[in-house]
Amino acid sequence: MSAQEFDQLFHKVCNWRRWGPDDERGTLNYITPAHVRAAAALVRSGHSVSLAIPINTVAGPDNPHPAVRYMVQMHDIHSDLGEESFAMDYFACECHGDCHTHIDALCHVAYKGKLYNGKPVSRVTSQGPTLMDITTMAHGVVGRGVMLDIPRLRGVKWLEPGEAVTREDLEAAEKAEGVQLGEGDILLFRTGHHRRRLELGAWTPGYDGEGRAGLHSTTMLMLHERKVAVFLPDGDGETVPSNVDGLPYPIHALQISAMGMTCADSLQFEELAKVCEEERRWEFMVVIAPLRLPRGTGTLFNPIAIF
Amino acid sequence: MSAQEFDQLFHKVCNWRRWGPDDERGTLNYITPAHVRAAAALVRSGHSVSLAIPINTVAGPDNPHPAVRYMVQMHDIHSDLGEESFAMDYFACECHGDCHTHIDALCHVAYKGKLYNGKPVSRVTSQGPTLMDITTMAHGVVGRGVMLDIPRLRGVKWLEPGEAVTREDLEAAEKAEGVQLGEGDILLFRTGHHRRRLELGAWTPGYDGEGRAGLHSTTMLMLHERKVAVFLPDGDGETVPSNVDGLPYPIHALQISAMGMTCADSLQFEELAKVCEEERRWEFMVVIAPLRLPRGTGTLFNPIAIF
Amino acid sequence: MSAQEFDQLFHKVCNWRRWGPDDERGTLNYITPAHVRAAAALVRSGHSVSLAIPINTVAGPDNPHPAVRYMVQMHDIHSDLGEESFAMDYFACECHGDCHTHIDALCHVAYKGKLYNGKPVSRVTSQGPTLMDITTMAHGVVGRGVMLDIPRLRGVKWLEPGEAVTREDLEAAEKAEGVQLGEGDILLFRTGHHRRRLELGAWTPGYDGEGRAGLHSTTMLMLHERKVAVFLPDGDGETVPSNVDGLPYPIHALQISAMGMTCADSLQFEELAKVCEEERRWEFMVVIAPLRLPRGTGTLFNPIAIF
Amino acid sequence: MSAQEFDQLFHKVCNWRRWGPDDERGTLNYITPAHVRAAAALVRSGHSVSLAIPINTVAGPDNPHPAVRYMVQMHDIHSDLGEESFAMDYFACECHGDCHTHIDALCHVAYKGKLYNGKPVSRVTSQGPTLMDITTMAHGVVGRGVMLDIPRLRGVKWLEPGEAVTREDLEAAEKAEGVQLGEGDILLFRTGHHRRRLELGAWTPGYDGEGRAGLHSTTMLMLHERKVAVFLPDGDGETVPSNVDGLPYPIHALQISAMGMTCADSLQFEELAKVCEEERRWEFMVVIAPLRLPRGTGTLFNPIAIF
Repeated sequence: MSAQEFDQLFHKVCNWRRWGPDDERGTLNYITPAHVRAAAALVRSGHSVSLAIPINTVAGPDNPHPAVRYMVQMHDIHSDLGEESFAMDYFACECHGDCHTHIDALCHVAYKGKLYNGKPVSRVTSQGPTLMDITTMAHGVVGRGVMLDIPRLRGVKWLEPGEAVTREDLEAAEKAEGVQLGEGDILLFRTGHHRRRLELGAWTPGYDGEGRAGLHSTTMLMLHERKVAVFLPDGDGETVPSNVDGLPYPIHALQISAMGMTCADSLQFEELAKVCEEERRWEFMVVIAPLRLPRGTGTLFNPIAIF
Repeated sequence: MSAQEFDQLFHKVCNWRRWGPDDERGTLNYITPAHVRAAAALVRSGHSVSLAIPINTVAGPDNPHPAVRYMVQMHDIHSDLGEESFAMDYFACECHGDCHTHIDALCHVAYKGKLYNGKPVSRVTSQGPTLMDITTMAHGVVGRGVMLDIPRLRGVKWLEPGEAVTREDLEAAEKAEGVQLGEGDILLFRTGHHRRRLELGAWTPGYDGEGRAGLHSTTMLMLHERKVAVFLPDGDGETVPSNVDGLPYPIHALQISAMGMTCADSLQFEELAKVCEEERRWEFMVVIAPLRLPRGTGTLFNPIAIF
Repeated sequence: MSAQEFDQLFHKVCNWRRWGPDDERGTLNYITPAHVRAAAALVRSGHSVSLAIPINTVAGPDNPHPAVRYMVQMHDIHSDLGEESFAMDYFACECHGDCHTHIDALCHVAYKGKLYNGKPVSRVTSQGPTLMDITTMAHGVVGRGVMLDIPRLRGVKWLEPGEAVTREDLEAAEKAEGVQLGEGDILLFRTGHHRRRLELGAWTPGYDGEGRAGLHSTTMLMLHERKVAVFLPDGDGETVPSNVDGLPYPIHALQISAMGMTCADSLQFEELAKVCEEERRWEFMVVIAPLRLPRGTGTLFNPIAIF
Repeated sequence: MSAQEFDQLFHKVCNWRRWGPDDERGTLNYITPAHVRAAAALVRSGHSVSLAIPINTVAGPDNPHPAVRYMVQMHDIHSDLGEESFAMDYFACECHGDCHTHIDALCHVAYKGKLYNGKPVSRVTSQGPTLMDITTMAHGVVGRGVMLDIPRLRGVKWLEPGEAVTREDLEAAEKAEGVQLGEGDILLFRTGHHRRRLELGAWTPGYDGEGRAGLHSTTMLMLHERKVAVFLPDGDGETVPSNVDGLPYPIHALQISAMGMTCADSLQFEELAKVCEEERRWEFMVVIAPLRLPRGTGTLFNPIAIF
């Protein structure tokens, strides 16, 4: 796709001013209380499943900035505490690492100097964003999750790096699973990225390495039409190399900057996929609870599916 | 209460071996799939509310170890990214700070050298706990939340530091709110700690300062009888000074070490209290999703109530 | 002093282009190998003294961003190490805190959008400075240190916050101590800031608090004439409130941005002052060894005086 | 060497109680003011050279825990500062990483549960060491540095991983360089480790990788006889695999635990080696200035050689 065609696509899916000139929630506006109630009504077996990868403190090809966790105090310290003792630790991380399950605030991505809703990038300063930070989701995001499982559709363990999923694939997955993605939904998009990592080991998923499987840019038209509220991929949704000339990460630009879509990165659906098979359904309640971090551009999180 | 009386109380509420010699989940065992379904059935209006305090990066009397958040990259960097740019940040914190909403792993507290289920404190090493870390809750905790609002009961804005809430108070709150705390419930215990902080400013809540309002140690008998699964307080549940001779934090010892009860610290119920009044109900679905941090003694989190 | 007068002063002491259009070392150019040899020749008794404050991990009025230090591993871990064990820790800090002894890179301060040598502030990006970082001092700075001790001159324990030291004071201190500040020297400027802190406790030294004692802006003319290479103050050299209309920290602008002078902040000369009295001399060898941190805007350091 | 032979060697070089039962300085006691004066007298050309590797923030085979450096504030922030702006950053690291130039406190290493001077490892708690922390060197270490350059002796670029340097090698290097290591000296031991890294890239220097070149355990007898005060290696002094049965890092145990010798890790002598050749001398003044970090088990540092 040429840069010009990309800009046309950007324009087609653009939600700027759709919810007012100062809106900071974007496609989260699609989720109404009725959607929350409907999502809760999907709870039938009472099982919950994490969609997060265990936090990784070991450096590797996809983890150049490992999280750290150190003990602050152990049970060897009793000063003034009588018979009691406390173990405590410290945690630090970059919030947008390739192998840490994290959610992006809308200030995370700009295209041609503009954030979602046309706001200038100067609204993000060295002291942090002055708008569209992660606290726009302070009260959590609750809705219907629908997993479209492309490896399952194709009968493979995972998609190989570089493979791009098309609208036809997504629609075929809907049919195969008996679901239809609709307004206010939380889309879980499975490429098998994490399963590949578990079985073959980590690789460098960016342009300096093997790449990754993801969506074709044109699928954004479908997500836009369907009024999807939230996008949760294993991997990060991008096909690397991308199909847009000169633009390495077009999905991020379209989703976050054009559509104002709440996106996350680097989830894992391996435990989820098993439960889906057992229950023979690919829809469920999802609860997203980002840390309430003022001026955060994103946070690590642990999204939960409830069946 | 004398040390001897405390040990008798410890013995009465002790759940060691109740769920087997190697159990690491304690009172979370009370929550069955049926409880999850029942909790989801409480979702009627479709509103969600955060129970977390915004993360505090400013040092203060109750925040001696402030969290930090710094920009890792801003939209001034475009190298090899074409027209795109990304804002990213870094976050670090102690997980058990007095003013950070956090959840404790069962390895957090020991009494007389023993963790829950009688495990020795040597199981927590300088590399982290080798059992009962925060990943025992990897798949989240979902259940019925019941808020017992003591200031509401008493017609005050908040309890003053040092005030101890008794079983009679808790039962009176149940009656006033038309709820009854039962097996597998998530107890939200409100003293108004955070409201006091918002209106009067921070104070030093420990023994070197003004203290805090909390539970009387004997209320643990009630929580034990009722088979409460999770305890979520504003403040941290402790009355400071405590009512046990020579033991500054008896509630932690009883809940975590004796009962194996999942506890959190430093929540806020100010937004919640308003919704409860509006909906005239003090029960709702609660979803707890700690970060999936191997060897974590706890994590910051953002618990969500769904009405 | 009016803003206009300040700009005239800025112009008078300005060293831009003095050492070429791309110079990044500023007044360090004054120090020649001959100065290093002369400094070494001052070593007569063989005693060394630290000029740093012990690193402070406790939050306080002048320490809003305390450094942290946690154990990474203790001697309880022997895996595969036979009879050996290792204790290791982790350290983190903001490099420019008010109570941490630190040295500034020349990129640290800009005035009217310009760094030293007229370079634009855009040369400092969110990835760090692209010029004039702390590694311009990678090989250390060695020279003659001269302490001008103003409280000693005045017969007081310390200067009170807000007091401004003039050229006359500096010259009187020279006379009292029998030294003369000259080309390539390292000036240690003592107000007694740290002694006051030790005896009275910490205060808020900025505009939101009690202020601090420091230099009058016009003393920069003397430092410029004398060709001082490095400035090491207790406090940070600034008088707060400043004597320049609308400019809170004029000394930083003059020293770093106009003169390209290597400056440090928050040293302590209490141990040094005793040795100076004992040896009856206020000149000595000084060795400055900043961490070799690429893209650092400064680093904590431990400057050493050798007698 | 058998474990028994190692224990005999440990006993032979043991300095416990040599400087009193509560000594915390070990072989630093060898350095007298006369040694400092003699070291300063070596300053003849006035050049200074760093012995540190630039701090590495990129993960790699020898850098599993990379240091981090982030901007805290940039010149885009002017609030209340008039025409001034400040760039500031944050720095964090593990202090004992394989590729970070750092110095060890004597509490860093224990052998058979004992620290230097026979102190029990329980003196290092989860709150940090209660003795022999890095502040025993608060006032810096100044002395004569002598570099023994083994690759130069052998006419090779570097020693290969696994090669062990013997007493004969060290004595031959002394002869070749016209120096003799003596009481109170700072030994710089060059294997070419860093040159190999610069030319061939990083490798895993531990037991899970290619190993490293270092000293044979028996050389400790020579260092003991010669009363060397400080040991500064490129690499970390250890030969990996070691020549002691069942003990992977015997040099650390002998130097730090038995001898109480101040040691550092991971220096680089590439810049130094050039100056040594130019000046035809392998002795010079060395100044070591560890951060003044209470309870630190070590710190990053930038040792400086002055010619």
